Amino acid sequence: MKNRPIGIFDSGIGGLTVAKEIIRLLPHESIIYIGDTARVPYGTRSNEIIAKFGIQLTDFLLKRNVKCLVVACNTISAVALEEIEKISKVPVLGVIKPAVSEALNTTKNKKIGVIGTYATINSRAYEKEIKKQNPDVEICSTGCPLFVPLAEEGFSDHPAAGLVAKDYLGSVKSSGADTLILGCTHYPILSGIVKKIMGPEVSLIDSAGPTAKQLQELLKARNLLADNRDPSYEFFVTDAPKRVLQVAGRFFGDTINGRLKKVSLD
Amino acid sequence: MKNRPIGIFDSGIGGLTVAKEIIRLLPHESIIYIGDTARVPYGTRSNEIIAKFGIQLTDFLLKRNVKCLVVACNTISAVALEEIEKISKVPVLGVIKPAVSEALNTTKNKKIGVIGTYATINSRAYEKEIKKQNPDVEICSTGCPLFVPLAEEGFSDHPAAGLVAKDYLGSVKSSGADTLILGCTHYPILSGIVKKIMGPEVSLIDSAGPTAKQLQELLKARNLLADNRDPSYEFFVTDAPKRVLQVAGRFFGDTINGRLKKVSLD
Repeated sequence: MKNRPIGIFDSGIGGLTVAKEIIRLLPHESIIYIGDTARVPYGTRSNEIIAKFGIQLTDFLLKRNVKCLVVACNTISAVALEEIEKISKVPVLGVIKPAVSEALNTTKNKKIGVIGTYATINSRAYEKEIKKQNPDVEICSTGCPLFVPLAEEGFSDHPAAGLVAKDYLGSVKSSGADTLILGCTHYPILSGIVKKIMGPEVSLIDSAGPTAKQLQELLKARNLLADNRDPSYEFFVTDAPKRVLQVAGRFFGDTINGRLKKVSLD
Repeated sequence: MKNRPIGIFDSGIGGLTVAKEIIRLLPHESIIYIGDTARVPYGTRSNEIIAKFGIQLTDFLLKRNVKCLVVACNTISAVALEEIEKISKVPVLGVIKPAVSEALNTTKNKKIGVIGTYATINSRAYEKEIKKQNPDVEICSTGCPLFVPLAEEGFSDHPAAGLVAKDYLGSVKSSGADTLILGCTHYPILSGIVKKIMGPEVSLIDSAGPTAKQLQELLKARNLLADNRDPSYEFFVTDAPKRVLQVAGRFFGDTINGRLKKVSLD
């Protein structure tokens, strides 16, 4: 059981940043990753459709006998985690709880900002999780839908991205938050610009590291840590135009090249 | 036969601009529109997936007994028109041929620029159609993938959109083209900014008007013009979050509100 692979999924390839962090922290673990590149992005869609697509991704991985599931997508974690837990016989870890724990360990003035897709922000999933862990924290959250295309198109250092970020981050900056959760796997690509606007005193929290750490704890607690000497990595996407390969390299490193296999979910 | 509806489809709701123009020019025609909002955008996907989705949209309309099909999406028209024609028993009209005819009627210096999604530009469909109609025309084309999210997020007059447009349009501007085809249904929303960069002497060509005109000619030639006194309009989408309703209003007018019905294609 313990040497079965970890299943990781995302609406696209942003979740590769989480996969990378898991591989780094847990080098004996085998991994199966799937990104729904034929239907990405999810962040502007309805909760109903996000849940439907999320369940299809879950089914894909459960059929491949994974020992646990990592929902490496803030939007799916925010909207459909409960539904996924209902159909999964193996443990499920989303990215929201780990990011919130990290943010609560980081904030000093108990003011936390959250940025994400429309679906993530509208779900209030981050707010609910923060309040659950600490009801005394003030929260300011805002949607930044253009950050994903800006990151994917290689505009992360472009002056246009700076102008967009300045617009989006106005309310979060004036809230006085000392900690900002980057609630979308694409946003770390824009952390340079976000940091510049928020100022050096604001800590940016990204899900990848905290999720890998919580996964390690979860596997340890359940005696599920692998001891594979030669772990296997499989990466699936539902569509693989050239562009996806390029962006995947930006998120994971060039070792991903030629390793993305195409599958169909419908 | 002639009073059966016209079927119009798009990857999303940008094609509503074409539907609007058809309704304006042909007020006796009934219309069924479908936009694949659960899987939009198509412009960054592979030709294979675009064709697959395009065929599903075609099937949806053919089952509803349309008398003809309008592919109101540049990406699907560029990549999958032939495949759609193969399975359709009724006439099929894409948006590329009408836009090209209009551009050729407009250009004086025989230099035409084309902007569109990655899939549209990489297909070279506009270049092939221009060369077919007039081999002596010089063409400069370039992908503008961020224009769709900028238009959908209401950033069309934002300084960030100006900076992005300046980057994208550099090569087309320096080519000396006197006519620029806006090869994506979303781009007319950004025509203010595009015009400012290209200069007042450059004519912008948008598919909606020319497509409605060619549709009128096609229906007339085949004796298929309707004489409905009370034409019906049906609008389907595959996902309908609030945001889609807002953007649909931006493309079609507020009369669309409450008229979008949700269906599933898979």
